[in-house]
Amino acid sequence: MRATLMHSAGDVRIEDVPDSRIKNPTDALVRITASCVCGSDLHPYRSMAPGSGPARMGHELIGVVEDVGPEVVTLRPGDLVVAPFAISDSTCAFCREGLHTSCAHHEASFWDGIDDEGGQAEAVRVPLADGTLVKLPVAADSALVPSLLTLADVLGTGYHAAKMAGVRPGHRVTVIGDGAVGLLAVLSAKRLGAEQIILMGRHPARTDLGRELGATDVVAERGEEGVARVRELTGGQGTHAVLEAVGHLPAYEQAFGVVRPGGVISRVGVPQYEEAPIGFGSLFRHNVRLAGGPAPVRAYIEELLPDILDGTIEPGKVFDVETDLAGVPGGYRDMDERRSLKVLVRL
Amino acid sequence: MRATLMHSAGDVRIEDVPDSRIKNPTDALVRITASCVCGSDLHPYRSMAPGSGPARMGHELIGVVEDVGPEVVTLRPGDLVVAPFAISDSTCAFCREGLHTSCAHHEASFWDGIDDEGGQAEAVRVPLADGTLVKLPVAADSALVPSLLTLADVLGTGYHAAKMAGVRPGHRVTVIGDGAVGLLAVLSAKRLGAEQIILMGRHPARTDLGRELGATDVVAERGEEGVARVRELTGGQGTHAVLEAVGHLPAYEQAFGVVRPGGVISRVGVPQYEEAPIGFGSLFRHNVRLAGGPAPVRAYIEELLPDILDGTIEPGKVFDVETDLAGVPGGYRDMDERRSLKVLVRL
Repeated sequence: MRATLMHSAGDVRIEDVPDSRIKNPTDALVRITASCVCGSDLHPYRSMAPGSGPARMGHELIGVVEDVGPEVVTLRPGDLVVAPFAISDSTCAFCREGLHTSCAHHEASFWDGIDDEGGQAEAVRVPLADGTLVKLPVAADSALVPSLLTLADVLGTGYHAAKMAGVRPGHRVTVIGDGAVGLLAVLSAKRLGAEQIILMGRHPARTDLGRELGATDVVAERGEEGVARVRELTGGQGTHAVLEAVGHLPAYEQAFGVVRPGGVISRVGVPQYEEAPIGFGSLFRHNVRLAGGPAPVRAYIEELLPDILDGTIEPGKVFDVETDLAGVPGGYRDMDERRSLKVLVRL
Repeated sequence: MRATLMHSAGDVRIEDVPDSRIKNPTDALVRITASCVCGSDLHPYRSMAPGSGPARMGHELIGVVEDVGPEVVTLRPGDLVVAPFAISDSTCAFCREGLHTSCAHHEASFWDGIDDEGGQAEAVRVPLADGTLVKLPVAADSALVPSLLTLADVLGTGYHAAKMAGVRPGHRVTVIGDGAVGLLAVLSAKRLGAEQIILMGRHPARTDLGRELGATDVVAERGEEGVARVRELTGGQGTHAVLEAVGHLPAYEQAFGVVRPGGVISRVGVPQYEEAPIGFGSLFRHNVRLAGGPAPVRAYIEELLPDILDGTIEPGKVFDVETDLAGVPGGYRDMDERRSLKVLVRL
């Protein structure tokens, strides 16, 4: 079968690989019908060390179940399913608390922890299929597929940012980053009732979409200027919640610059740093809280799916380009150069 | 009048200073009857640069109102009052939300921000008296004074740690630090219904008091050994909440070592560091949250006072030594050398 491999920074190729197949009794084999490229795929695309690859890529997918292991009970061949970016059993203590990204099962993992599998490919073996996959009540060619595909990562991740920040009616919210996650964090903050949603981003096509999804203000400035602008928009106080959807240190520094005393910085951009300021001068003095992490998107699917099915939300708007598997390397390049917001891959 | 001045690290003196007096119409003048030395006073005692002093010391006090400015409406001469370590108007938006340590009033401050005033002295000018001071329904010689004095800082600070960590029935909690705040964090976690309370500390007299206040386990080991011991006591998972009552970096590192996925590190020890690990390897991977800051102890007094008055809690047990004003320098020395847990000063 054909699959996407990253050999080193900037070097993504579509190659022939051994067919995926059932290995364990709780696996499902899924023929992929829709996938995409993630902002987090761009981190290795920019920094992967020569010699550390090749790595199988992709962690967002919709597909049709082709085969199931003997212990799979909720799925049958022919079912259309969406796979979150984290494999989980959905029965352990952490999953029951809604923290599927910390699932205690020994097979639980992110996709990059599973050898020889990935979502930017023709097919995939999905471990813990009953716990991981969610059946979709539409056909594989449904017009809702782009929006449903965001349940695999970017919608749930934006929603996690807003939930972990405790966004509620009346709150002021800053969203840092105009990528797909940032834009869906805007949508999420609106869904949770935020009164003011300030989107920090400087790509007009993206921030325009941000306004359409719920942003009340756009701040194009960065750093100290950006912080000053947000403070100006909030009577000097900053916002109750800051949803940080970038992952680089300057975005975090911007976050503690614009957060209100007693507020929350909720991070869902994978941090590309380990050490950062958290002492008296940044978080401590005004009881600023820090939250976030890899989103347990599985936990949010039941809640968000009905809104997609009835058209209340249309998160699929973050896809601005469609391609096939052969177009994936070009998709990485276009997203890296910010010519595309998010690339949908149809198979 | 006599007051405590710190001239440089290790150099604390009792000296004659100009009498405190009313300056602003919202001030009260309080004749101090009980004060104490705080763990946070030991930070400058260990590190104050030569030439940066002298500084007036003390931020926990009970006293009798001697005079009030013309705009003070809730207090009269003769009232016994307790003063939190932060001055606040109790009417601004932040105070109404319970975040008195971020009070927006221009006179709001911690005691060290008020020139020529301090709690380790014979008297003190209290700005924003109506907002700051709380009247106590006992006499100045009440046996409850030591416990009531903890409302000024250490009890409210320990309670803030537990509240910000969201401690609730069934939770497992680690408390790092066996100083007065750590011990009252134990009491607070118990009050909020924690099922298991692991106290990390290695001074037997203190950890014994910790057990009396509610600790179910004591871990004397530090660093990696201490982390391993807590994990062993929690089935490998760590605790839902970690209350960090020290403020040094190794305590924070211990905290992210023992916290459960999805749990909260709640810091109330004043951080003696600015940068610390918060990336994928420490907080982010398992959605560990960070909370805490200077405790708005004023917000907790109405809730905790009745428990002290009726004897349900006895936080005054953290005082193991009593002295007079002349004994304050010796009190600093004894606390610094850990011969005393917390020194009560009677005037």
